[in-house]
Amino acid sequence: MTDASLLAEHLIAAPSVTPATGPVFDVLENMLAPLGFAVHRFLEGEAPDGPVENLFAIRQGPPGSRHFAFAGHLDVVPPGEGWTSGPFAPERRPAPGGELLYGRGAVDMKGAIAAMVAAVAAVPPETGTISFIVTGDEEGPAIHGTRALIAFMRDQAIRPDLCLVGEPTSVNRLGDTMKIGRRGSVNIWLAVEGTQGHVAYPQNADNPIPRLVAMLAEIDALTLDEGTDWFQPSNIEITDLEVGNPAHNVIPAKATARISIRFNDLHSGASLSDRIAAIAQRHGGTARPVVSGEPFLTPPGAFSRLISDAVEAETGIVPEASTGGGTSDARFLKDLCPVIEFGLCNATMHKRDEAVAVDDLATLSRIYARIALAALHPQAAG
Amino acid sequence: MTDASLLAEHLIAAPSVTPATGPVFDVLENMLAPLGFAVHRFLEGEAPDGPVENLFAIRQGPPGSRHFAFAGHLDVVPPGEGWTSGPFAPERRPAPGGELLYGRGAVDMKGAIAAMVAAVAAVPPETGTISFIVTGDEEGPAIHGTRALIAFMRDQAIRPDLCLVGEPTSVNRLGDTMKIGRRGSVNIWLAVEGTQGHVAYPQNADNPIPRLVAMLAEIDALTLDEGTDWFQPSNIEITDLEVGNPAHNVIPAKATARISIRFNDLHSGASLSDRIAAIAQRHGGTARPVVSGEPFLTPPGAFSRLISDAVEAETGIVPEASTGGGTSDARFLKDLCPVIEFGLCNATMHKRDEAVAVDDLATLSRIYARIALAALHPQAAG
Ligand SMILES: [Zn+2]
Ligand SMILES: [Zn+2]
Repeated sequence: MTDASLLAEHLIAAPSVTPATGPVFDVLENMLAPLGFAVHRFLEGEAPDGPVENLFAIRQGPPGSRHFAFAGHLDVVPPGEGWTSGPFAPERRPAPGGELLYGRGAVDMKGAIAAMVAAVAAVPPETGTISFIVTGDEEGPAIHGTRALIAFMRDQAIRPDLCLVGEPTSVNRLGDTMKIGRRGSVNIWLAVEGTQGHVAYPQNADNPIPRLVAMLAEIDALTLDEGTDWFQPSNIEITDLEVGNPAHNVIPAKATARISIRFNDLHSGASLSDRIAAIAQRHGGTARPVVSGEPFLTPPGAFSRLISDAVEAETGIVPEASTGGGTSDARFLKDLCPVIEFGLCNATMHKRDEAVAVDDLATLSRIYARIALAALHPQAAG
Repeated sequence: MTDASLLAEHLIAAPSVTPATGPVFDVLENMLAPLGFAVHRFLEGEAPDGPVENLFAIRQGPPGSRHFAFAGHLDVVPPGEGWTSGPFAPERRPAPGGELLYGRGAVDMKGAIAAMVAAVAAVPPETGTISFIVTGDEEGPAIHGTRALIAFMRDQAIRPDLCLVGEPTSVNRLGDTMKIGRRGSVNIWLAVEGTQGHVAYPQNADNPIPRLVAMLAEIDALTLDEGTDWFQPSNIEITDLEVGNPAHNVIPAKATARISIRFNDLHSGASLSDRIAAIAQRHGGTARPVVSGEPFLTPPGAFSRLISDAVEAETGIVPEASTGGGTSDARFLKDLCPVIEFGLCNATMHKRDEAVAVDDLATLSRIYARIALAALHPQAAG
C-alpha cells in the first residue's frame, strides 16, 4: 500500500495557513491525477476572507455504480511560536510508542488527506465512483470553502451516496471515536436602549441595565431541552456584557450583552433566534442573531456500522459515536448526503509541535480503504 | 449697603478652575481684612487633586456672643467653549428682567460669596462672631477642601453655632428653595470571578456572568425605604456592566458591574455597603464600596424658620425646604453644627454663559444680613 506518511510529508511541506491557495493544492493534484482522478480547482472570495482555493476530484466508476466521497481541508491554523522543528518542515522523530511525524496539519488534517489518497490507490476504479471534496478554508470563516464546493457539485448534478470527513475525531487512541453529529451554534447580540441621565435625578432618566439584567436572568433560566439519544442538552452561555460607562454619576443610555448557544437537532438557528428575540422584546430590547452552523446528525445505522466495522477490523476497538465538541464542515455536507467524521487523534491539533504517529497513518489508510470498499458495495446502505 | 455685584465682578475676574489657589483668595482676603476679619489661608494636598487653597476668616464678637458661619467655595467648574463674553471677563448686559452679570461662578458661587461680604459689612461687629469657611475644592474631589478647614477649626477649638452654605439652591426665582438636607452617595464596584473556557465545553468552565446577573437582579429588586418626612426614597442605579470579551466562543473569567446609591438618613454609607456586600457574597462575588458622602439633615425648626423669615421679608415668598439633588460640602459641615444651604438661582450653573441677575445679588446680600443678625441674636436657637 502507498505510504501515507510520505504523502503527508509532501502536504505538510507546502505552507497553507488559512485561507489556503496554490502550492498545497498542486501537491494534492499531483497525487490524485495519476490515480485516474479528474481534478477541478477554483478560487472563491476576496480579501480578507479569501481568495480561497477549492478542489473537487472525481474518479468515475462503472455506470450505475455507487459514489463515495472523502471530504476535508488543506488549510491549517497559524503555527504560532516555539516549535521544536519548523512547522512546515516535516520531521520524523523516534518516540516511546513509535515514530512521530511533526508538522502543522499532521493530524488536522493533511495526515488524513494523505491516508485518503493512499486508500483510494488500493481501491480498484471499477469498484465505484470516488470523489475528494477539499477546501482551503475550514479553519477560517468557511464562507467561500465547502459551501462553494457543494454549489459546484450541484451545478454538475453530482451527488455522493455517502461522505466521510477526515477531521481528527479520535481522542486517546486511533479509532476510539467517530462523530455522527455536531451541535449547531448561534451567537446573539442583545441590546437595550434607555435615556441617559444623572443618578441624582432618576425620574428624568431611563436606565436600560435593569431591563437587560431581567432579560438575561430569564434567558439564563431557560432549559432548552434535556438532550436526546444522541445529543447532550443544548446549552446557553452569556459570553459578554458591555455598558462602558466611566462616569459614576451617570445613568447610561445603552446596555448590551452577547450569548452563545450550542444546540442539538431539536432546534434550528432560526427557532432559537426567534425565541430569544421574543424574550428580548418583552424586556424592551432587541436581539441580533448570527447563526454560524446548524446541527447535523447521521443517526446510528448502516453507515456508522460500516465505519465501526472497518475501525474494529484494523484496530480491534469499536468507536464511540459522539456528537460533542465544536462545529465542522459536516454542517454543510449534510445537505448532500449522510455524513460521518472519522480521523486521527486530536491531542496536538491547533497546538505547538502538532504530530501524528506514523503507524496511525498506515492504519488509517487501511481503515479508509475498507470504508470506501464497503460504501461502494452495491448492497451498501445510505 | 456695599454693592455685591462689584465684589462679584472682582471675584469672577480671578480665574479659579478647580482646584483653586492664589489670586482669587487674595481678592477675598482684601475684601474681608478691612471689615475686621482675621484671615487664615493654607494650602493642602498635592497634584493631581491639589494643591488646594483654603481660607478661614473670623471676626470675633464680644465674649460669650454667638458665632455664625458663612461657608462656600471659590473654585469653579471649567468654562468649556462657546461663551458670548469671556468666562473670566465679567460683563453686565441688559435683559428683559433686569441687568445680568455674566461670568463663570456668577451663581456657583462667587456671587453668593460677594453677597456674604456685602452682608457682613452691614452687621455691626458687636452683634457677635462671624466667620467665613471658604475652600478652593468643592467642584473637584473635595478631599483637601472643607474637610481640611474643619480640621483647622477643630485644632483651634472654633465651633460655630449655625452655618449657612451659599450654594445656588433657588430654582425659578431667588428665594423659592433652600436645602435642609442632602442625600448620601455611595458607589459600589461588584465583581464575580469564574473560570475561562470554551462554550462547546461548558463543563470545563465556570461562567461568572449568570451569578452577576442574579446578583444584580436581587439588588435591583431591593426597596431600601419608602422615603421619610423630609427625604424621597433612597435609590439604587446600576451604572455599568463590563466583561470585555471579544471572543464569541469563549466563556469569560470575570464579570463586573458598578452601582450608585443615593440614600436618605435612614441609612449610612457603611450600612448599605455591608448590605450589598452580603448579597454579592451570596452570589459568589465581591463588593468594593466608595462612600462619597453621608446624608445630612437639619430638620425644619428654629434655624430653617429664621432663614425662611429673612427670605420672606426680602422677597415675599416662603422657601420650600428641599433635600433633593446631588451632594455638597454640607455633608462635611454637618459635623460642626446645624447647616442649611441657601443661595442664587441655579439655572445657569456649570453651563455656558453662566449669569446672575444684578438685582438678585443685592437682594441676597440683604437676606444674608438678616440671617446673620437673627442667628447672632442671644435668644436664637441652634
Ligand atoms: Zn480540521
Ligand atoms: Zn457650588
